[in-house]
Amino acid sequence: MTLTQKEREIIENSIRDIKDFPKEGIVFKDITTLLNNKEAYGVLMNHLHNRYKDYNLDYIAGIDARGFIFGAALAQMLGLGFVPIRKKGKLPYTTISEKYVLEYGVDEIEVHIDAFGEKKGAKVLVIDDLIATGGTANAAATLVKQTGAECVECCFIIGLAFLDGIKKLEEKTKVYSLIEVN
Amino acid sequence: MTLTQKEREIIENSIRDIKDFPKEGIVFKDITTLLNNKEAYGVLMNHLHNRYKDYNLDYIAGIDARGFIFGAALAQMLGLGFVPIRKKGKLPYTTISEKYVLEYGVDEIEVHIDAFGEKKGAKVLVIDDLIATGGTANAAATLVKQTGAECVECCFIIGLAFLDGIKKLEEKTKVYSLIEVN
Repeated sequence: MTLTQKEREIIENSIRDIKDFPKEGIVFKDITTLLNNKEAYGVLMNHLHNRYKDYNLDYIAGIDARGFIFGAALAQMLGLGFVPIRKKGKLPYTTISEKYVLEYGVDEIEVHIDAFGEKKGAKVLVIDDLIATGGTANAAATLVKQTGAECVECCFIIGLAFLDGIKKLEEKTKVYSLIEVN
Repeated sequence: MTLTQKEREIIENSIRDIKDFPKEGIVFKDITTLLNNKEAYGVLMNHLHNRYKDYNLDYIAGIDARGFIFGAALAQMLGLGFVPIRKKGKLPYTTISEKYVLEYGVDEIEVHIDAFGEKKGAKVLVIDDLIATGGTANAAATLVKQTGAECVECCFIIGLAFLDGIKKLEEKTKVYSLIEVN
C-alpha cells in the first residue's frame, strides 16, 4: 500500500525546503512543518498504520533522533514496543554497535543487546525520516539482525532518489520510502 | 488525573536501574525497557492520553531526544501537531535559543520561531522522559513563551524528587511527573 495522490499532496506540501543547510549547496528537507501540521501529521501516521497493521510486526525501531518521532507514534498505534537505535554512548545497558562511513569520517550507532526480547526472530520495522546514502540505515538493519531479530522492512518518510542509498539497502532488506525526491 | 496503583506498578516495574551510568555513583533510570514492553508502553500512553485529552492543547513539544518518543506518540493520539525542541544546531530554519547550566558548563536548546503557528497564545504541553535539576525543562518552557505560545504544563515520566528541579520549574509553569523517585 502506497500513498494516494491526495495523501501525497498533503504530505509533500507540508515539507519545507531550506536552502544551504547544513552547508552551502544542500537543500534540506525540513519535516518540522509536517509534524506541527496536525492534518499532515495525521494523514502520514494513518497511512503508516494502514500499511503496517497486517505485517505481524513485533517491534518498531527508530533511528536517533528523528526516527524516534515516527517510530514511537507508529508503535503506539500498532500496540507494539518501541526500540531506540542510538548514537554511540547514549544507551546505558550492554549494547552491540556498528560503524558506518560518513562523507568525512566514521560514525557509530548501537542498540541494547536484549532490545527485541528473549525469543529470536522477532519481526522488526526500522524507521527514519530520510534516506540519503543509506549508511545509518544499513548499520541499523545489520544491528537488528545481530541481535537475532529479523529486519522486515526499512521505512523512510523521504528518499533521496538521486543517491544510491535505497538501491544499496535493498540488497539487504525491503525498503519503503513514502516520498521520493529527485 | 494521576496513575492508578495498578498502572504505577506496571510502569515502575518496566523501568530498569543501571548502576554507575553515565558515571560512578549514579543510578540511571533506563526507560528502554518500558518502551519495548508493549503492555507498559500502552498503559503509559493511554494514561497520558486520558490526562491530556480535555486540556484543549494545540501542540505537544518534545525535548531532544527521549522527549520525542512520548511527545510524538501523544500528539498523534490527541490529533495534534508535534514540535521538537532540539539541541543547538539541529534545526534548519530560524530559531530562538536558550542556554542552561549543566553540572560542568553550559548547554543550549532551540525551537523554530514559527513552531507554534501564526496565532499567538497556542496551548503547549512540554514533555520529556525525566526531570533532574530541571535546567533543560526550564529553558524549554522559556522558549515556548518566547515564541508567543503558552506553556500549559511540563510533563515527565520520571521526576527525581531528591533534586529541586520540579520545585524550581513550578515557579514558572505547572508540572506533572508520573513516577517520583526518592
